[in-house]
Amino acid sequence: MIIVKIGGGKEINLEGIIADLAGIDEPYVIVHGANALRDKLAEDLGQPKQVLTSVKGYTSVYSDEKLLDVMMMAYAGLRNKRIIELCQQHGINAVGLTGLDGKMVRGKRNQGIRVYQGKKLKIVRDFSGKPQSVNTPLLHLLLNNGYVPVLTVPIIDEHNAAINTENDDVVRVLQKALEAETVINLIEAAGFLENKDDTASLIKNIPASDLKARENQVEGRMKRKMLAVRKLFEQGATRIIISDGRGDHPIVDALDGKGTVIA
Amino acid sequence: MIIVKIGGGKEINLEGIIADLAGIDEPYVIVHGANALRDKLAEDLGQPKQVLTSVKGYTSVYSDEKLLDVMMMAYAGLRNKRIIELCQQHGINAVGLTGLDGKMVRGKRNQGIRVYQGKKLKIVRDFSGKPQSVNTPLLHLLLNNGYVPVLTVPIIDEHNAAINTENDDVVRVLQKALEAETVINLIEAAGFLENKDDTASLIKNIPASDLKARENQVEGRMKRKMLAVRKLFEQGATRIIISDGRGDHPIVDALDGKGTVIA
Repeated sequence: MIIVKIGGGKEINLEGIIADLAGIDEPYVIVHGANALRDKLAEDLGQPKQVLTSVKGYTSVYSDEKLLDVMMMAYAGLRNKRIIELCQQHGINAVGLTGLDGKMVRGKRNQGIRVYQGKKLKIVRDFSGKPQSVNTPLLHLLLNNGYVPVLTVPIIDEHNAAINTENDDVVRVLQKALEAETVINLIEAAGFLENKDDTASLIKNIPASDLKARENQVEGRMKRKMLAVRKLFEQGATRIIISDGRGDHPIVDALDGKGTVIA
Repeated sequence: MIIVKIGGGKEINLEGIIADLAGIDEPYVIVHGANALRDKLAEDLGQPKQVLTSVKGYTSVYSDEKLLDVMMMAYAGLRNKRIIELCQQHGINAVGLTGLDGKMVRGKRNQGIRVYQGKKLKIVRDFSGKPQSVNTPLLHLLLNNGYVPVLTVPIIDEHNAAINTENDDVVRVLQKALEAETVINLIEAAGFLENKDDTASLIKNIPASDLKARENQVEGRMKRKMLAVRKLFEQGATRIIISDGRGDHPIVDALDGKGTVIA
């Protein structure tokens, strides 16, 4: 079992990814983002995203009800359905699902984020949280009947409300439930770069024992991604490939060991 | 088996509909629209919908690639996922699907619409078409495992491309496949009105033999709706209820025989 995580950047080659997937024999589940699309749509609708910075310095998108609406449009609507259409055109009988559908991904809503407003400390609560479990019987029901699940946010919280979450965390819960050996993480970079501005600084292999050190080496989204990778390892994944989603054959390249292989 | 068609008008009481559905014992499938949401979103994005008028005088929405994008956002994204969320909050384990997902609704793309451009006759081809079949095994797979399918457009054409279609036509294909006895059609009116501007002119019962005459009596969307109703009867539905989707208890009212009952 392979889990294919498709990043939400605007340069990701969806057509190339889906064409490659049509040629592989092993079963797989797709998880995709749409952050570039979400940000553009939010801008176009005159409600640009707001970023919260916690007192500890972590940043996150402020996911109020309106942002969730935009997410539903961008992730569950446009991006998911165009991916499903591409899949069908390549002979993959895909079914798109958010975490709400059949309670596919259940999570717990965040209690609140401590932020400074000017000099005042304030607790802001939005519709975001952490995934905790997936509906494994529904996944198997679909897979056993020839359907490829294509998952995206939002997920469903403990009160059955839609919440935003990190797709990397969805991948982690999914990997554990399906006992997937391989996770392919397609991003807008060649893989893990020693120097993020130098594509030639690609690290081709990272032993699991070096993950913590690598995590400390980077910042921002890549730091969060490396933390997700480390957790994936701790729970049993045997191979994680961080690879370029922009090339002509992103999946073939990833399985050929291009990008960064963590094993 | 009941098919519940929820109209896409902005006054439809989704919460009331879903709360009612949580209380009924018979199995059902939901089909929903989102036309008010689509039109607003298209306006907000600066690409208002264009209406084509065929040489025969029929009107239809010009469904180019951009309009399909907007439809995916409005129907498959925002409206479908908020309905799924409402279902989950009322204990209904719903799964939202477009016609693309698992090739749930297959159709045939229209060859082209003959329109006048000034005085020139032109054939305009867009991404629209007619549904022809549904994926009955996938519907039964979901229903037999406790999931309620919640369907919406787009559907998939003979070349596996996304196309727009009338939800009333999707209902017709679905009714036949599931041999549903009852179809509830929730609209923004009390039912079939003798005089569309007078809510007191509600016709409470229409015998199937009068359908053709009633169809000739009305215009626009209602004419198309009555044609769909007549076709439903011809293929075996035994009860069709056109009822108000705006009240506190739209489903309870419909099953109580409020609205227009055709039997």
